[in-house]
Formats: sequence, structure tokens, C-alpha cells
Amino acid sequence: MDNNFSEEFLIKENFRLDEYSTQYQGKLTKKEGLEILKIEKEKLRELQEKLYADGSQSLLVIIQAMDAAGKDSLIENVFGGVNPQGCIVTSFKTPSSKEYAHDFLWRHYLAVPQKGMIGIFNRSQYESVLVCKVHPEYNLSEKTWKSIDDFDDNFWENRYESIVNFEKHLALNGTKIVKIFLNVSKDEQKHRLLDRIAEQDKNWKFSVGDLPERALFHEYMMCYEAAINKTSKKEAPWYVIPADNKWFARLAAIQVIIDTLEKMNLEYPKLSAYDLDELENCKKQLENE
Amino acid sequence: MDNNFSEEFLIKENFRLDEYSTQYQGKLTKKEGLEILKIEKEKLRELQEKLYADGSQSLLVIIQAMDAAGKDSLIENVFGGVNPQGCIVTSFKTPSSKEYAHDFLWRHYLAVPQKGMIGIFNRSQYESVLVCKVHPEYNLSEKTWKSIDDFDDNFWENRYESIVNFEKHLALNGTKIVKIFLNVSKDEQKHRLLDRIAEQDKNWKFSVGDLPERALFHEYMMCYEAAINKTSKKEAPWYVIPADNKWFARLAAIQVIIDTLEKMNLEYPKLSAYDLDELENCKKQLENE
Repeated sequence: MDNNFSEEFLIKENFRLDEYSTQYQGKLTKKEGLEILKIEKEKLRELQEKLYADGSQSLLVIIQAMDAAGKDSLIENVFGGVNPQGCIVTSFKTPSSKEYAHDFLWRHYLAVPQKGMIGIFNRSQYESVLVCKVHPEYNLSEKTWKSIDDFDDNFWENRYESIVNFEKHLALNGTKIVKIFLNVSKDEQKHRLLDRIAEQDKNWKFSVGDLPERALFHEYMMCYEAAINKTSKKEAPWYVIPADNKWFARLAAIQVIIDTLEKMNLEYPKLSAYDLDELENCKKQLENE
Repeated sequence: MDNNFSEEFLIKENFRLDEYSTQYQGKLTKKEGLEILKIEKEKLRELQEKLYADGSQSLLVIIQAMDAAGKDSLIENVFGGVNPQGCIVTSFKTPSSKEYAHDFLWRHYLAVPQKGMIGIFNRSQYESVLVCKVHPEYNLSEKTWKSIDDFDDNFWENRYESIVNFEKHLALNGTKIVKIFLNVSKDEQKHRLLDRIAEQDKNWKFSVGDLPERALFHEYMMCYEAAINKTSKKEAPWYVIPADNKWFARLAAIQVIIDTLEKMNLEYPKLSAYDLDELENCKKQLENE
């Protein structure tokens, strides 16, 4: 393909968010982009079928972004053609008291996709170093900690390290990981929030609580930058995708995902000579019924 | 619509399986059927979005059938266009020892879809009165039981009752249930198993263990008849769909599901006067930033 965005948005080291545009800078038109997306969706559908048949690996797609950056609609538009039997989306919201009674990775571990599956995390363990870093008092619900003074630099370093090691462990044991940050501008977020207010059928997506969080937009961006810097590893890379143009974000995301699946060397299971003999016997048995 | 199969295959009382054809008897051609399916898929996509936005109810679709009756491909073809974020498929295979250490409904209860979601059970609690009735010794793994002598008529009556009460409870608490039996003939099953042997990319779907189960086809049908008779209730009805023609089974199933969703009176959430005021305030706040 001529336009492959997978390499372009891969984060390697010394990531600085302000070097990444929130807008698509290329020459592709929206119409062209939608055409390519259609072809890519068919490719994704086929790769997912192979992943399922192969049954020896799984793929975990982590999607993080600010409110209204397009997480939900991206999931719908990228994965909408995939067999729902091979694809499981987990949306992480405010933890329950049972979840708070465990460590911060526990509920995410429970949702890791089993072999053969694509698992999508709509928000993820990264909220523990994003919303929980912007509002450190939230961590007190975990009971382990005594006061806000516990949440010093060392505390956050430990969190990054826990996440990195968790993801490395998964990667070593058959779960491929890609992490996507949908990079939306504060201005575009404003337009989208106003849309949710203007269109009655979208009102349910708007929460009054979105505005105080929006006021902390800059603080969130600093936390994203730090988290991505600390946790983008070869075995669990981050991709920072410009998200002001929804059609483009979807296209870039599906290409990242397809690229990842293509590198997994998926194969339809091959039968051994013994199994082939067995199959031949079964065939005769059925034919002679 | 002219061809609505939802009523036609609904089981009411005194169900006799031999009165139900495994073949589609109508006049619709496959080409026409596929055209309608396409329209119905769009309708299902919209209804699922409404279910999700509404957030007060969930839908549980139970799919049961013999091997090679088309469960997997039906799930793919009926739900393939639905937002994966609102749709979760659970495939029940041989229970783990942890699952056996609980009662037979436990693992199914854990998988009941939360409000706003469509949950699909690929096999279900009904295996406990199907495969476990054909092979009663399987129940001994549950530890509760001492010997095969425990599995008398009374035992099965208790199981049906547990299932009926479980489903009634769900129905009373916001989970709508439809149960679909894909009625395939023994002859058609033979053709499909031979296909799985003939096509290399389908080999992985074939299991040598399928043949001994096929030999018990008649015993299975008796168990299906009994189970459907005992558990088809207004709040959790069974539909017996002819499944020798895959295209038709998919069409009938999607119509049953759409019909069910349409009767759930789903609405996009309406805001109260107070909430509308709040929304207006947020709008002003955003505009004056």
C-alpha cells in the first residue's frame, strides 16, 4: 500500500507530545480514506479469522484518549466488520469497591483476551497514571495508601514499572499488545462536546462532569506524555494518532492493528500425518454410514 | 415486512420436534433472503445502538444446536455488523474444574450481559440437560452427586425447574431472553462434516470426537425435545429454526432477535427539565471559553 501510517506514528524514545499534530497533514482526501478503510476492514476480518483458527496467540489493543476524542466510534468503525465471536471489548470506568480492594492492575488482568481473540480495552490500566495522577486523591480509595503524600515521584515510577512488566509478561506469553493514543486538540474537543449538547440523540453521551476535566486538559497532556514516554516498549509500543479528523484516526488505527497482526505469523493449524490419517478414517466412516 | 418468521417458529406448548422441518419450506429464494438479511442487519445495528443508549435493559440470545449446525457462522453473519462494544459472545465448552466446583448455572450467571448489552451464549446452561443427559456420567464431575443412580427423572425435573426460574428471574430484572435451536438434519450434518474434512482451511473445525456424538443424534434430539418442552416460557421463549439452509436460518434468527428488541420499547434517554438547564449552562460555558 502507498499510505501506511503504522511506522509514522510509532513512538520510540524521547517522545514530546507537542511535536505531534492533532490534525492529519497528508494529501489523502476523506473520500479516498474511506475507500481504503473499507478494504482494510476486510483484511482485518480475514486476519482475525486466522488468529482465531491459529489459537496460539491473542492481540490486546489499548485505546486511550480524552473525552470526545472518538474512542467509541473508532471501535465501532474499525472492528464493526469483525466476527464478534473473536473480538471482545472491555470498557473500564470508575472502579467498583471490589476492584479497589485489589491492586490497580487486577481488573485489567482479568480482561486480558484469551488465545485466538482480539481484546480491546476502551481505557485501560493507563488511567491509573492519567486520571489518577491528575486527581491523586482517587488513589486513596485503594486503601493501601495512607495519604496524598504517598504519591510522590517514586510512587509514579513504580506504577510505570508495574505496567511495563505486566505488558512484557503478556508479550512473552502469547499476547501481542498495541497501544493507541487518539490525539485530539482542545479546540476540536470543544466542537464535539457542543455537538453532543446540540443533538438530542447524542445528549446521553454528554456528562456535566466532562467540563471540569476539560479545564484540566493541559495537566492530562503532561500525564499522557510522561506515561507514553515511560511505557512505549518494543513489546508493547504506543502509537500517537492525530484524531481531529475522525476518518483519518480510524484509518491509521486499523493500519497499526493490521500491521501488528501480519507480524504475528498466523497460520491455519496444520495437521500431523497421524491426524490426517485419522481424518481419512473419519471420512470413510461417514461415507459408509 | 412480508416474510416475518418470528411467530412461525415460536414454541408454545406440546412441542414435537418431528413436526418441525429442518428445511425451509417457503418460496423465498436465497438471493432474496440475502437481500432481506442485509436490510435486517442495518435494523439490528440501529436497535443495538438504542439498547446501549437506553441502558436499562439487556438482551440474552441463547443459541443451541448439534455440531456443524451453523452456530458459529450464524453468530458471525447475524451480529457481524453490530458495534462490538455493545455485543459480547460467550462460548461454553467443557467446564473447568473450578466451574465444576460450583453449581451448573454458576458460570452462565457470570456471563449474563449487563444493561445496554446484547449477550450471546454459544451453547449455554442447556448443555446441562443435553450433553449431560446423553452422558449422565459427566454430572459426576460436579462432586455433589454420588452415583449415576442420582440422575433419575426427578433430577432432570429439578434441572429444568432451576433453568426456568433462573431465566424468569433475569426477565423480571431487565434481561430479555430468546432461545434459538438450529434444527439441522442428520443428513445435512454429514455433508458439512465431510466438507470440514475436504477443505484444508476448515480442518481445524473438525474434531474426531464429533463422530461418536453424531452416532447419538437421535438421543440428542429426544433431549432437545424434552428441554424445549419444559423450558419454553413467555418470558424466555424457544424458537426452533430450520437450519439445513444456512442463509435461511440466519434470516429467521435475525428476525426473531429484531422482533424481540422492538418489543422492548427502547428509547434514547430523555433529559429532565433540570438536566436540560444544566446542558444549556454547559453550552454557554463552552461557548464563552
